Amino acid sequence: MPRQPLRALKPRTLAVGLGLLAHAAFAEGDAHLDPVAPVALALAVILLAAKVGGDLAVRLKQPAVLGELLVGVLLGNLALLGFPHLESYKSDAALDLLARLGVVVLLFEVGLESTVRQMLQVGLRSLAVAVVGVALPFAMGWAVGAWLLPTHGAAVHAFLGATLSATSVGITARVLKDLDRSQTTESRIILGAAVIDDVLGLVILAVVAGAIGAADRGEALGFTDIGVVVAKALGFLGGALALGTWLSPRLFHLASRLKATGVLLAVALAFCFLLAAAAQAVGLAPIVGAFAAGLILEDTHFAELASKEHHSLDSLIHPIGAFLSPVFFVLMGMRADVRQFQDAQVLLLALVLTVVAIAGKVLAGVGAYGKGVDRLTVGLGMVPRGEVGLIFANVGLSLSLKGEPVVSAATYGAVLFTVLATTLVTPPALRWSLGRQGAKVALG
Amino acid sequence: MPRQPLRALKPRTLAVGLGLLAHAAFAEGDAHLDPVAPVALALAVILLAAKVGGDLAVRLKQPAVLGELLVGVLLGNLALLGFPHLESYKSDAALDLLARLGVVVLLFEVGLESTVRQMLQVGLRSLAVAVVGVALPFAMGWAVGAWLLPTHGAAVHAFLGATLSATSVGITARVLKDLDRSQTTESRIILGAAVIDDVLGLVILAVVAGAIGAADRGEALGFTDIGVVVAKALGFLGGALALGTWLSPRLFHLASRLKATGVLLAVALAFCFLLAAAAQAVGLAPIVGAFAAGLILEDTHFAELASKEHHSLDSLIHPIGAFLSPVFFVLMGMRADVRQFQDAQVLLLALVLTVVAIAGKVLAGVGAYGKGVDRLTVGLGMVPRGEVGLIFANVGLSLSLKGEPVVSAATYGAVLFTVLATTLVTPPALRWSLGRQGAKVALG
Repeated sequence: MPRQPLRALKPRTLAVGLGLLAHAAFAEGDAHLDPVAPVALALAVILLAAKVGGDLAVRLKQPAVLGELLVGVLLGNLALLGFPHLESYKSDAALDLLARLGVVVLLFEVGLESTVRQMLQVGLRSLAVAVVGVALPFAMGWAVGAWLLPTHGAAVHAFLGATLSATSVGITARVLKDLDRSQTTESRIILGAAVIDDVLGLVILAVVAGAIGAADRGEALGFTDIGVVVAKALGFLGGALALGTWLSPRLFHLASRLKATGVLLAVALAFCFLLAAAAQAVGLAPIVGAFAAGLILEDTHFAELASKEHHSLDSLIHPIGAFLSPVFFVLMGMRADVRQFQDAQVLLLALVLTVVAIAGKVLAGVGAYGKGVDRLTVGLGMVPRGEVGLIFANVGLSLSLKGEPVVSAATYGAVLFTVLATTLVTPPALRWSLGRQGAKVALG
Repeated sequence: MPRQPLRALKPRTLAVGLGLLAHAAFAEGDAHLDPVAPVALALAVILLAAKVGGDLAVRLKQPAVLGELLVGVLLGNLALLGFPHLESYKSDAALDLLARLGVVVLLFEVGLESTVRQMLQVGLRSLAVAVVGVALPFAMGWAVGAWLLPTHGAAVHAFLGATLSATSVGITARVLKDLDRSQTTESRIILGAAVIDDVLGLVILAVVAGAIGAADRGEALGFTDIGVVVAKALGFLGGALALGTWLSPRLFHLASRLKATGVLLAVALAFCFLLAAAAQAVGLAPIVGAFAAGLILEDTHFAELASKEHHSLDSLIHPIGAFLSPVFFVLMGMRADVRQFQDAQVLLLALVLTVVAIAGKVLAGVGAYGKGVDRLTVGLGMVPRGEVGLIFANVGLSLSLKGEPVVSAATYGAVLFTVLATTLVTPPALRWSLGRQGAKVALG
């Protein structure tokens, strides 16, 4: 029987077939074309670039993340230097997902460094910082809009205010990690405030979107709905922290009975991912859920598993964050289009917005009452708008009033600049401020 | 100025806006809808299911990967039990990418456990095993096709043969890892043969596709083209191993000068991803490049970095593989549709193909000449078709002859069964065989 194929494959067929091999091997949609290959190439480029950027930043006594952001800005604008091959990265769905997964794991990692108890101790101060840090920038952003864009309607002014009210905890979290300061009181106030900020940001954004939508469509809904949303968000945080703290030890005790290997990592990641998805379900950012998951988990919960597997959870989570989080920061840098700022008008608006954006959050630091708290550090930690600001900016771009987009490309460019500037200025500013504080502590 | 927004936000606007908040917060395409959330939820489900499945497998003295595959089969057919909510996982692009990334990292990890020198020592035996292991199943598959599907043309028979000639090293690599046997001579022969097999598989698939395409379109290309492809593939392997062995120590010495943290992990992953992408570029599977990268890297290359960062590369890569590789195995199980096998005809073809598929590869183990080599273990290690078989099956489905698809859904179903059966039978068979061998070794 084995001879049959030889008979069946006539010389001509064979010749033709062999020839078509090249065709088959290189044709589009070739069976061997594995979608992982281009992503793998992009990841290699991003990881190497991130480390080179990080190296330069560290040599300049700056946090590595600043280098990752700036190297991203460089890669993202190589097209201007006649090298357009990386343009596709900016909108690649796979890279975007890995980046988002990276910031989820990063916030989980940061959350692991604190406990719920420690966060509750700073809870009220976080609330104060968050409320001031949302109200003030919103008002100032609105004012800047009314001043520099008088012809645009209240919708644009409100949108500018909403964008400035956002806080992205990712950058600050990374800086605090880079500088090994994640466990100070200031860090906890910042992280707590950023979480509350996300809840308030949701409200602001929805109100603005609602106001614009209403002006456009003239719809009207009851007050109760907003109550539902806010209740859901707050309920999620309270519930997650309370229930999670009760559930976590029991979950890991159960898991410690499993005979498979790698149970600690799998269960911890699953816990983080479940809370991230749950946060989304109530309208919060997944990173808020991931951070809450990190807060809830405590070493004592999985001591059994850790000793059984001879690994601490940190040592297992860290490499995953180290692999994925640079993708987030480099990609965020890449998405900054420097061409936006050739227009003086845009540049002026951008600069004023940036000043206001920084001032508003720094002033919010005053909310961190109590002795021995460095309010400036807290305020600076709230400055970066990062991906949250980008989300807001994109909403503004998508909103339209009577067929006209609410936000012009120029205004959008200015907001992008503000988001980027606040994101880039934070690492060095925080480092400087923490150094000051460190010096103070050292002195007294 | 801060008072301006208060004036601008008239009560009615506010009421409407607040009302629309609910709308904004839950509407489709909501600004807060982060695409990472559904993926995070899926990952949580997959990771937990993988560990439960792994636990059961280990309790039954089987490798954990068998449990991951079977729990995948269960999850993938929950729709039959009236729970269709996981159906979307099977075709989710993000999960598919993470799975492919997982098997790339897995093969890199396995490659790290051996060196180029060790592989070259078994090179000739791997070649013998690979050649027999491709020729024999191809012939037998063709024969089975001619016997059970006489009405179908030579194209179908050739396609069946091509599918049976494939080898998926992922499963075997995982089993050898699960049983801590990755560094035995048998393991190296199997892994080497699987790599060569991928090269031969490329040729076979392209020839068959070419022959069918030719019969359909009557095209004809020169012999030289095939030479180019094969040369490229072999050139890649030889070149990667030779150049890489020269480059790697220098690369890591350079990297050890970088001041950023996490350089070892980033550079090692970048090296793996670059070779994976390069393999694709010459028409080989990315996992072949990842495996080659693992072979090339040796502890001595990055001793400087490892001591500087207080981490071994294994301890950094392992968690990433532990996170991603279960996604691959669970997803592969999920894609098996058990409904295919209600048709007795399909089932008969499926069973005969499976027997032949196993026999062909087991007999190929004879190619592993030399004293003290367990040929049965080598043969069994070559049995799983896994994702490579699935790729072949999908090509068959996509090929058409005079408008008719070459492969009927029934034939495709039978091939899927074979791919799954060979994949599921390998873990327990290998375990048994290695136990046998271990016993022998223990005896003398």
